[in-house]
Amino acid sequence: MPELRHNLITREWVIIATERAKRPRDFSNHKDRLAAPAHADSCPFCPGNESKTSEELHRISIDGMWKMRVVPNKYPAVNRTGEKFRSVNGLRRMVTGVGLHDVIIESPLHNTSLALMEPEDVVTALKLYKERFVEAYKDPRVEHVIIFKNHGLGAGTTIYHPHAQLIAIPIVPVQHRDRVAAAMQYFDDTGLCLMCDTIQTELEDANRIVIETEFFLTFIPYAALSPFHTWIFPKRHCASFSGITDDEITDLGFHLKVLLAKLYHGLEDPDFNLVIRSSRPKDIGNEFTHWYMSIMPKLTKTAGFELGSGMYINQSLPEENAEFLKAVRID
Amino acid sequence: MPELRHNLITREWVIIATERAKRPRDFSNHKDRLAAPAHADSCPFCPGNESKTSEELHRISIDGMWKMRVVPNKYPAVNRTGEKFRSVNGLRRMVTGVGLHDVIIESPLHNTSLALMEPEDVVTALKLYKERFVEAYKDPRVEHVIIFKNHGLGAGTTIYHPHAQLIAIPIVPVQHRDRVAAAMQYFDDTGLCLMCDTIQTELEDANRIVIETEFFLTFIPYAALSPFHTWIFPKRHCASFSGITDDEITDLGFHLKVLLAKLYHGLEDPDFNLVIRSSRPKDIGNEFTHWYMSIMPKLTKTAGFELGSGMYINQSLPEENAEFLKAVRID
Repeated sequence: MPELRHNLITREWVIIATERAKRPRDFSNHKDRLAAPAHADSCPFCPGNESKTSEELHRISIDGMWKMRVVPNKYPAVNRTGEKFRSVNGLRRMVTGVGLHDVIIESPLHNTSLALMEPEDVVTALKLYKERFVEAYKDPRVEHVIIFKNHGLGAGTTIYHPHAQLIAIPIVPVQHRDRVAAAMQYFDDTGLCLMCDTIQTELEDANRIVIETEFFLTFIPYAALSPFHTWIFPKRHCASFSGITDDEITDLGFHLKVLLAKLYHGLEDPDFNLVIRSSRPKDIGNEFTHWYMSIMPKLTKTAGFELGSGMYINQSLPEENAEFLKAVRID
Repeated sequence: MPELRHNLITREWVIIATERAKRPRDFSNHKDRLAAPAHADSCPFCPGNESKTSEELHRISIDGMWKMRVVPNKYPAVNRTGEKFRSVNGLRRMVTGVGLHDVIIESPLHNTSLALMEPEDVVTALKLYKERFVEAYKDPRVEHVIIFKNHGLGAGTTIYHPHAQLIAIPIVPVQHRDRVAAAMQYFDDTGLCLMCDTIQTELEDANRIVIETEFFLTFIPYAALSPFHTWIFPKRHCASFSGITDDEITDLGFHLKVLLAKLYHGLEDPDFNLVIRSSRPKDIGNEFTHWYMSIMPKLTKTAGFELGSGMYINQSLPEENAEFLKAVRID
């Protein structure tokens, strides 16, 4: 019998199709990232093509060569310049689309990815994410910042070269507000942080954990929204990604590298989206929210039911997928 | 400058990318449904293959031939039999996946669609939707019913033959609850139904209307979530689809047929999802919610930003798209 599981953090129900569940191997993608060239003349993110990107915002270099670059997105979702202006005219409510839309180029190599990079380079990328995250909130027009990655065509990327993005917007998404409100209610009901309590539950059950170290827990949530939907939670309560320490970032780099390598080898380079879910630095002391990282492989399609209900149908078992990932060798 | 518009009904913000907006024609799909055969031997929904579907639930016949059929989905998201049972174990909250998952086969012809069918056949399909909607709520395990259609591979269908689906679930989706709560708040603030008020606003602006008749208004909303996202609203306030009258259903058939034909001819058979958003029959007298139909062509991909924010980026102008659709000739 299928099971409807309630995801208390995303707030929505998920249909876990236990009977028609696919086996982990059924989600394999049969792709090989290394088959692409290490350098592509037409790629705007490859070395030598620096003039094809907008004016550089930041660069990390080693031995006179750049290792990572931050540039404004050439086709930004929001304008870097311009004033924030809000207008309310009956039901027509708008805000000017100002903010930041940056690209973080993570390597000079065209055909690599976080899954294939050295752990210390993944750590460098994460440090850069943190730096840009904190920096973006200094813009007085910005109310919310989302750092994300689209890996692979199916995950919505248009450029193969490894990169992440940052979008800083002049409003707070309702989804964020709703989740914070639910977590606040949980805190008021129980005196506990919902995410801290989720970590406890996952440690008790133990059958959905992929990686555990001193500072982080990587697991497939009880009500995973889709096959191999994975969360990386910091064990230490902290509302904002801006509060991550150097030791924690090193540990997070290990989790992210190992998880992505397991997905890469276990499912043959699946498309995925990665998102950092965090409150703003100003709210870092908040007891009831807790930042985390979410990785969502794009292995199935959502359709009319998901659109019309906000729910998900997960055609796989979180417990079985966690067991599969744990067993994938990445050396 | 891009504009962030607030969709008060879906509750979320949409980035309307005014500057990088694509022209309506850029979304063309270059497909032709009629190029497929009218009958496919391998199609489980084609006449002659009735034994390939599960036991028939309902049939509409003319001259001894079936015109439309309702059958249980062979790979249901929820089980037709079994008891509803809820279990709460700390953060692990689940309900047994019981309910209904039906397929409404809309024609014996393999290569047609609502866009190409006679208006009276579209009306027959809508009457069948209503009948099954009302029927589904009679199951005491069912708390919410979603009628939807996935048209085309990109919209998540696996079977080409024209059909809609009904999923009846044992819980109420949080998305529905949230939208009802927002509409209730609006009613308490203003004494008005948010959807009735939206109709007034659209009629005042007049530049996003595609079709208007006595009973319905078809328009592209001010904060359309994606290119050509279109709503068909009944002008008469009614919380549940179950309350639609025969005259209204005839008028709705006209709107749906004309809208889908305009999309078919104007954008060359785009993939789309269709959803009926409605409260249950029991709540029909409710002053603050209002059922409607939503059509969402799948013309762009959502990615990490949308996932991480719940927001949408619409790379087109609602006003321009409405003007384009209005001008499409369907004869």
